[in-house]
Amino acid sequence: MDSFSCPLPITDYKTVILAHGSGGKLTHDLISKLFLERFKNPFLDVGHDGSVFAIGDARLAFTTDSFVVTPIFFPGGDIGKLAVNGTVNDLAMCGAKPLYLSCGFILEEGLPMEALWQVVLSMEEAANAAGVQLITGDTKVVDRGKADKLFINTSGIGVVETEQPIAPNRVQAGDRIILSSMIGDHGIAIMSVREGLTFESEIQSDTAPLNGLVAAMLGTGAEIHCLRDPTRGGLATSLNEIAQTAGVGIRIEEGKIAVRESVYGACEILGLDPLYVANEGVLVAFVAPTDTESVVAAMRQHPYGQNAVVIGEVVAEHSGTVLLKSSIGGTRVVDMLPGEQLPRIC
Amino acid sequence: MDSFSCPLPITDYKTVILAHGSGGKLTHDLISKLFLERFKNPFLDVGHDGSVFAIGDARLAFTTDSFVVTPIFFPGGDIGKLAVNGTVNDLAMCGAKPLYLSCGFILEEGLPMEALWQVVLSMEEAANAAGVQLITGDTKVVDRGKADKLFINTSGIGVVETEQPIAPNRVQAGDRIILSSMIGDHGIAIMSVREGLTFESEIQSDTAPLNGLVAAMLGTGAEIHCLRDPTRGGLATSLNEIAQTAGVGIRIEEGKIAVRESVYGACEILGLDPLYVANEGVLVAFVAPTDTESVVAAMRQHPYGQNAVVIGEVVAEHSGTVLLKSSIGGTRVVDMLPGEQLPRIC
Repeated sequence: MDSFSCPLPITDYKTVILAHGSGGKLTHDLISKLFLERFKNPFLDVGHDGSVFAIGDARLAFTTDSFVVTPIFFPGGDIGKLAVNGTVNDLAMCGAKPLYLSCGFILEEGLPMEALWQVVLSMEEAANAAGVQLITGDTKVVDRGKADKLFINTSGIGVVETEQPIAPNRVQAGDRIILSSMIGDHGIAIMSVREGLTFESEIQSDTAPLNGLVAAMLGTGAEIHCLRDPTRGGLATSLNEIAQTAGVGIRIEEGKIAVRESVYGACEILGLDPLYVANEGVLVAFVAPTDTESVVAAMRQHPYGQNAVVIGEVVAEHSGTVLLKSSIGGTRVVDMLPGEQLPRIC
Repeated sequence: MDSFSCPLPITDYKTVILAHGSGGKLTHDLISKLFLERFKNPFLDVGHDGSVFAIGDARLAFTTDSFVVTPIFFPGGDIGKLAVNGTVNDLAMCGAKPLYLSCGFILEEGLPMEALWQVVLSMEEAANAAGVQLITGDTKVVDRGKADKLFINTSGIGVVETEQPIAPNRVQAGDRIILSSMIGDHGIAIMSVREGLTFESEIQSDTAPLNGLVAAMLGTGAEIHCLRDPTRGGLATSLNEIAQTAGVGIRIEEGKIAVRESVYGACEILGLDPLYVANEGVLVAFVAPTDTESVVAAMRQHPYGQNAVVIGEVVAEHSGTVLLKSSIGGTRVVDMLPGEQLPRIC
């Protein structure tokens, strides 16, 4: 994989391929060349996990995510828990307090009712844990073979109480980059099930609601410029997105990024780079340098931020590019996920 | 089909069947016995097309719909136009002015890029026509054979400016029931394509944004108690939903309900009752008797309400039941759609 490889323009793909859903370059191409080409507006230009708009005296965040993960049950969670946490987290990344979720089910004829019931119970539990309410929904059924068990869309609304927006365009040179936790757990938990890999200790998805952690971070009063949960495409892709949107360079240190030993081992076996593996309970924060210590300290007090650590910084040079200083001292470009790595990971 | 037939409790279905997505009795059972059983809150109890909540000094409506219609292109529209109009209409039925939509695509590997582009163009056009903005989105791709070309979820946010809520529980005895247009066009347009039926004049889907019509109706200052767009399950199912939620009886006159001649003919061939066929550009309004004339007059000034007519009234008797006075003078119970009639109609 050449870091500087340039995929063909989307118009040269006559059909949709799996990599268009990977969260990497082809997903970005599809979105920018098809969707953003027509659905132009200032909200979408922000390039964030959700959009923030004002209504009356309130500012609200709005986001949507469809979940097509396979298998629908996996170590540490299921599609229902993922669907609630995923949208809760997208709202939290906008600095919003998540309030209300919608839920759209697409069910395949033949889905065992028991499986659906387990997913519903799981969504209820996840909604309670995150402190959100599912207030509107929709159910569709398609014929056998026209979907894969069930797909779930959740959209969410949250209230933004920060004075300044939390968005990529606020990221600036000097910002420190804080990673909340170890990376790679979710993607490897899914892939291990699919590939039939077993390890001494089972690798569990890290799926978790991050709104509590974000509230603790905002509670410090620190100058937090941007938040992002590195899901599809992993940490590498998220950092590239921010670097490109903000027009800044990013430098990170490999030695600071923690990966569970079993996850690292699985990555070796599967030929994956943990930097590109999806996470569902991890966030990366861009924070003003003087506030870094207080934010890290607050994060470490929270169950989902115990391993928070500064992994790098934002620089004015090499705009749009992420450089990684490896543990053995070299420096390399870390590009956005170029193609398909892990299809249907969320 | 016995109008008083009672489907087995959902727990006796071991798997999901197509009829669970028909919008009729089995859909209601699935929703009430699985989803509402766990996702209990006052918002869902309202039993409307969307939920209304207050934030700051504003009242907002929030709704979601997934679209799985097949074929994705049909006379009068496509899945993209339907996805925008469907959510716009659900917001309008809450008396809300639709503002913002989210858009979640699930794409099947192999979908021609050209088809996706046509859908995007269609969504842009529909959003412009309805005066809404698509402000957040998500794209997933699943392997060939695990979806059917593409599914779209749209969720929407609108602002409610009416003093009184517009919801089923405000419907009361004496209310007049106004139908905005002829029924059955959408369902028959889809079925005609699927079944390869041709008619002298092509039957087109009636898919349309109804927010302008609703604004005109609300502009009269009339006491409008409830609005509903009779989509899946048709007019009969919508009226039953309202009768049951509001705890009232409903009487309608067959002779007042207009059906296009070609639609009527197609229904005969296909063995369908137009009362159960989906509409995507029709609404039914429950209005205080003294205000009925002004509302009908306002509707007739609007392109989507030219054929507005009073089709019946709400009564205190036979709570939860809809009675139809047929053109030849008899009266019969019109039940909710008992099972599957038209799968994947929206």
